[in-house]
Amino acid sequence: MAVKPTIPKGTRDFSPLEMARRNYIFDTIKDVFSLYGYSQIETPAMENLTTLMGKYGEEGDKLLFKILNSGDFMKDISDEEAVERNLPKLTNKLSEKGLRYDLTVPFARFVVQYRNDIQFPFKRFQIQPVWRADRPQKGRYREFFQCDADVVGSDSLWNEVELLSMIDEVFSRLKINVAIKLNNRKILSGIAETVGEADKITDITVAIDKIDKIGIEKVNEELLSKGVSEEAIRKLQPLLELSGENEEKLTALSEILKDSQTGLKGIEELKFVVDNFDSLGHNCQLDIDVSLARGLNYYTGCIIEVKALDVEIGSITGGGRYDNLTGVFGLQGVSGVGISFGADRIYDVMNRLSLYPEDVTENVKVLFLNFGEKEALASAKLVGKLRKEGISCELYPDNAKIKKQMGYADSLKIPFVAMIGETELQENVVNLKNMLTGEQQRIPAASIPSAIL
Amino acid sequence: MAVKPTIPKGTRDFSPLEMARRNYIFDTIKDVFSLYGYSQIETPAMENLTTLMGKYGEEGDKLLFKILNSGDFMKDISDEEAVERNLPKLTNKLSEKGLRYDLTVPFARFVVQYRNDIQFPFKRFQIQPVWRADRPQKGRYREFFQCDADVVGSDSLWNEVELLSMIDEVFSRLKINVAIKLNNRKILSGIAETVGEADKITDITVAIDKIDKIGIEKVNEELLSKGVSEEAIRKLQPLLELSGENEEKLTALSEILKDSQTGLKGIEELKFVVDNFDSLGHNCQLDIDVSLARGLNYYTGCIIEVKALDVEIGSITGGGRYDNLTGVFGLQGVSGVGISFGADRIYDVMNRLSLYPEDVTENVKVLFLNFGEKEALASAKLVGKLRKEGISCELYPDNAKIKKQMGYADSLKIPFVAMIGETELQENVVNLKNMLTGEQQRIPAASIPSAIL
Repeated sequence: MAVKPTIPKGTRDFSPLEMARRNYIFDTIKDVFSLYGYSQIETPAMENLTTLMGKYGEEGDKLLFKILNSGDFMKDISDEEAVERNLPKLTNKLSEKGLRYDLTVPFARFVVQYRNDIQFPFKRFQIQPVWRADRPQKGRYREFFQCDADVVGSDSLWNEVELLSMIDEVFSRLKINVAIKLNNRKILSGIAETVGEADKITDITVAIDKIDKIGIEKVNEELLSKGVSEEAIRKLQPLLELSGENEEKLTALSEILKDSQTGLKGIEELKFVVDNFDSLGHNCQLDIDVSLARGLNYYTGCIIEVKALDVEIGSITGGGRYDNLTGVFGLQGVSGVGISFGADRIYDVMNRLSLYPEDVTENVKVLFLNFGEKEALASAKLVGKLRKEGISCELYPDNAKIKKQMGYADSLKIPFVAMIGETELQENVVNLKNMLTGEQQRIPAASIPSAIL
Repeated sequence: MAVKPTIPKGTRDFSPLEMARRNYIFDTIKDVFSLYGYSQIETPAMENLTTLMGKYGEEGDKLLFKILNSGDFMKDISDEEAVERNLPKLTNKLSEKGLRYDLTVPFARFVVQYRNDIQFPFKRFQIQPVWRADRPQKGRYREFFQCDADVVGSDSLWNEVELLSMIDEVFSRLKINVAIKLNNRKILSGIAETVGEADKITDITVAIDKIDKIGIEKVNEELLSKGVSEEAIRKLQPLLELSGENEEKLTALSEILKDSQTGLKGIEELKFVVDNFDSLGHNCQLDIDVSLARGLNYYTGCIIEVKALDVEIGSITGGGRYDNLTGVFGLQGVSGVGISFGADRIYDVMNRLSLYPEDVTENVKVLFLNFGEKEALASAKLVGKLRKEGISCELYPDNAKIKKQMGYADSLKIPFVAMIGETELQENVVNLKNMLTGEQQRIPAASIPSAIL
């Protein structure tokens, strides 16, 4: 026997059971995206490295999977270069394509490439795998799926309201209790301005982002160590202690940020989104959280993050507005706002809380046993009829021992077994067994659909 | 303006329109697979090169996309090796992973890897992209989808009958007129045996495979040039002229191959499949074609190929039985039989014959125009209600010029536009416009669902 084959570290196979569960999640998200008027696109797994490099920072460039050029990949490399071992330079000559790292950069590339054919505002969704050469660890994979929905070409805050409603709808359907956290980059800018440390916005937001984990005191220590003045830290305290309903938070913020134009604009935007989201009715809670930062350098308006309430796990969905998505590809002034569902974490949450509907993994309803050529043909005819009525069923292909055939039904959790042996064939009936209760009944073939309901 | 971004040669982006059409095809195939009791699996895009190399012949090895190792990819390459430029050796050290080339080898790997967890017979389907570093040309891509269904672990010919029924069902649903061609590898062996040239089976089958293209005379010339004796060629003639119904062909074959055990076994198998397929009823024609060979060295039993009747295009589906699928991974004696739908060619056929249902690309049913904050909120509430009834609709996010908003509906072929302006708000009605007929009516909000039917 040869060595047992394996797959690359950090990648996964999905069994029929896992696929059924994952499809349930993907289909739910897809249905909601479609209901809200988002259209699906797909982009190739491979992009030119010129498209991908430099978009995810230096660390990101290293995490890109690069494709070795076909044919003579050494042809542009001199002997000197080969032994010099300058890895970035060699990479550049050995490889011109890479696997997509996320769906956002390919989407930006798509928008620019087809800008003349696209009707704006363009509401697109995309559900595809992405690849990262990260060190694999529990819950972190080298191939995983992203489910993104974005609108580009519209500044309206109604888009934010819609995206929040979509989040609410998806998690209601999946029966996951969540809280949405909402912030706005302009509030963060306003805070830094107000405390007189506009140039330390990154240090300040990174520090206050940790407040849930390390508490106020440690946050203050970190701010001090980063060179934020004691005066500024004092001014920050009311923000760190902000609590109560969204309305109260907005009122307090208006007072604190009253001298910052940017801050007040951020409050106005938050208020529009929160008020309209509330007016439309929803299931999950929406909390303003001024400590929420996420990829700060990326977002320019609202910032969204979703937490599952009944499981300890990182954020399961995130998003926000970015005012210059397509700028890196030369198309300026196209604003976008979007969300990304973390399919793998959602899958983990669903598994840990057993949230799948009972029938999600059920496919075949009836297995017809095989008692030999003549009986099998009669069964196959019946199988064909049931399929015409949309009932998934199958004939056991081999005339094997009954125990083996029954074992197959058991193992695949097929709820009904139909038997047409010699006697049944003569009497023109089917012996139908309920695999759950063990109950058996001899019925005419035409009664099967109602008997298996 | 920067250079317009592009995607790698031979790859494709899919626009919303293209996605809607492709999803229609994939969903149809998926539904049929499920109805017949096949379960979906997925495997990673990347496989270890040890899994992939040597499985597709020397040419195939070259067409594998290889992933450059992460980190210091030069570390196992000495300076001598680097300047020696032995490409296969360097490839081996630069890369340990490749992109999957088809779905069959990963499936064989899957079966062996999880053989203790799998319930046999294992009926699996898999719909995923594959990658080949082929020279791109019209209709040939470097990234394309395969849709495979296979049964492993059952020798029963009922599997063949089922697979043919699935083909019939898929193409009936897609409204593509097809003919299925059926042959059996044992017939081909029987032919070579009978004409006394068993060792020339490849030359003989390659030659007679061309009969439709080049005619009998040229086939005979080719056979002669390959060293097939004149006596053998004379014996082959009745086979090349085989015609009529399947029943007549089988009778003629039984006479011609009467001295070949293998040949007679092949006839028996063909007969079982054809008779039972006929007994079960079907839409498309099934023709025995002894010139059909396809990957001869691969198949051991039945060989299947599907041709579209109304379009000049290569085969759009193929398959057959292979008796040792998992042997390369050390698991002997597992027989399999399967089919593969050529999604990209089917897509071409559908496009050329305009076979899509009219509503396949329709998603959003109603666009609500945006007349300002108050009106938009009223519209948004109504949008929410309609979505609860499963009606896909959307609010135009910006309070833009009416012409622009109408243009959006036009361009996306949204069939209805709903307007709630100041007057409508006061009178509690909606002004609904049918974009196809131009007809407008003022109706209560509750009447929208019936008005857009």
